[in-house]
Amino acid sequence: VTVHLVGAGPGDPGLITARGLELVRGCDVLIHDALVSPELVAEAPDDALVISRERLRQEAIDELLVAYGRAGLDVVRLKGGDPFVFGRGGEEAQALAEAGVSFTVTPGVSSIAAVPASALIPITHRGVSDRVTIASARGADGEEPDYASLVDGRGTIVLFMGLERLPVLAKGLVAAGLDPSTPASVVSNGTLPEQETVTGRIDEIAELSADLATPALVVVGDVVEVGARLRDAAMAREVPAVP
Amino acid sequence: VTVHLVGAGPGDPGLITARGLELVRGCDVLIHDALVSPELVAEAPDDALVISRERLRQEAIDELLVAYGRAGLDVVRLKGGDPFVFGRGGEEAQALAEAGVSFTVTPGVSSIAAVPASALIPITHRGVSDRVTIASARGADGEEPDYASLVDGRGTIVLFMGLERLPVLAKGLVAAGLDPSTPASVVSNGTLPEQETVTGRIDEIAELSADLATPALVVVGDVVEVGARLRDAAMAREVPAVP
Repeated sequence: VTVHLVGAGPGDPGLITARGLELVRGCDVLIHDALVSPELVAEAPDDALVISRERLRQEAIDELLVAYGRAGLDVVRLKGGDPFVFGRGGEEAQALAEAGVSFTVTPGVSSIAAVPASALIPITHRGVSDRVTIASARGADGEEPDYASLVDGRGTIVLFMGLERLPVLAKGLVAAGLDPSTPASVVSNGTLPEQETVTGRIDEIAELSADLATPALVVVGDVVEVGARLRDAAMAREVPAVP
Repeated sequence: VTVHLVGAGPGDPGLITARGLELVRGCDVLIHDALVSPELVAEAPDDALVISRERLRQEAIDELLVAYGRAGLDVVRLKGGDPFVFGRGGEEAQALAEAGVSFTVTPGVSSIAAVPASALIPITHRGVSDRVTIASARGADGEEPDYASLVDGRGTIVLFMGLERLPVLAKGLVAAGLDPSTPASVVSNGTLPEQETVTGRIDEIAELSADLATPALVVVGDVVEVGARLRDAAMAREVPAVP
């Protein structure tokens, strides 16, 4: 009996890990993120207690995990993506460790590579990019991200949850010295059937993607063109390129 | 009939995705990286053709994928980690697209977060790090990485496959301005039973980890201390913290 912090993957229910699925199927309590696929939630046993974290503050979730863990139940905390990548899984682990409740961490497929991959964009590519910087659309403590160091970092930039703030983010990157013709893609609902991808120059991408739905992830850099060429080649041959 | 580029995950066979496992179980041909777990290779059907990529050049693999794909066989190309994160999956996809062979991409759990997580290190943590830069131990074209921009990038630095070059890498980071007391961890054989983690200051970490086995991943930044505290708290309560 323990609390399992489990990554559900980027959206497509087939992208949970084999171990994660096994843990969900055997749990007493399932506490899941709102964005986790309903198909995965439905994998919990019929008599399991299922709780959506929607409308719960982080502190309330921590308390639930500790309380059910102490009660000797097998608890799965099913989180979108990977628990330890912009997922606040570290905070949940801390709360459990401090309360003396045993826990495990089962990594998941993070959106950072899987969502670009669902648009056939490799975040690294030989001769094109050997470095990736992953940042949230807000800097620490809700401030603006440090654009200068993002631009200086070269390689691919992946911005988490950046759609609403994209006009500001794109302007900030260009003002910090990013070439305005740098290619960017916004991938909305990545890995899901309703996925949409919009591609353009960084100084035009906010306008082009204004109507896309969230969640969305923004990829900036020359790998975007590798992805566009791959999609074109696949489409030209009517090749269904993504499962 | 198509070629599936599939991520096997970071080492632990339980960390392949549900879809990836299904594809392996149904394939005609399995071409796998040497580092992929033998348990996963054994999941291929008894009559499947199983080929280790060991000793094959990238061009030879591309040719095999195209040839078996054209022959109308279901081919799984099982790659360590994620195919599109330092995995040359983009090149294989290009070869297939150019040859007119249909393909799919099934992302995997990348080592970049899962290996640190297996030492309870979250690569992002609220109030500690909201940015991650992932770099290979060599820069583009085999040169030294650009240390200055790595250090300026702040946040967490994850160095792929960095163990052999760690003395040079650590010196390069400090010479570029990284505080010599910055904490670093080397995680060897992450997610596997033989996993070992060594933690210390960046200016001491190469010496401390000289005896570790490859593959190993290097994490640099204050999240290393979050992980160390989590491991201590878990050990103090004899909590088995990782599955």
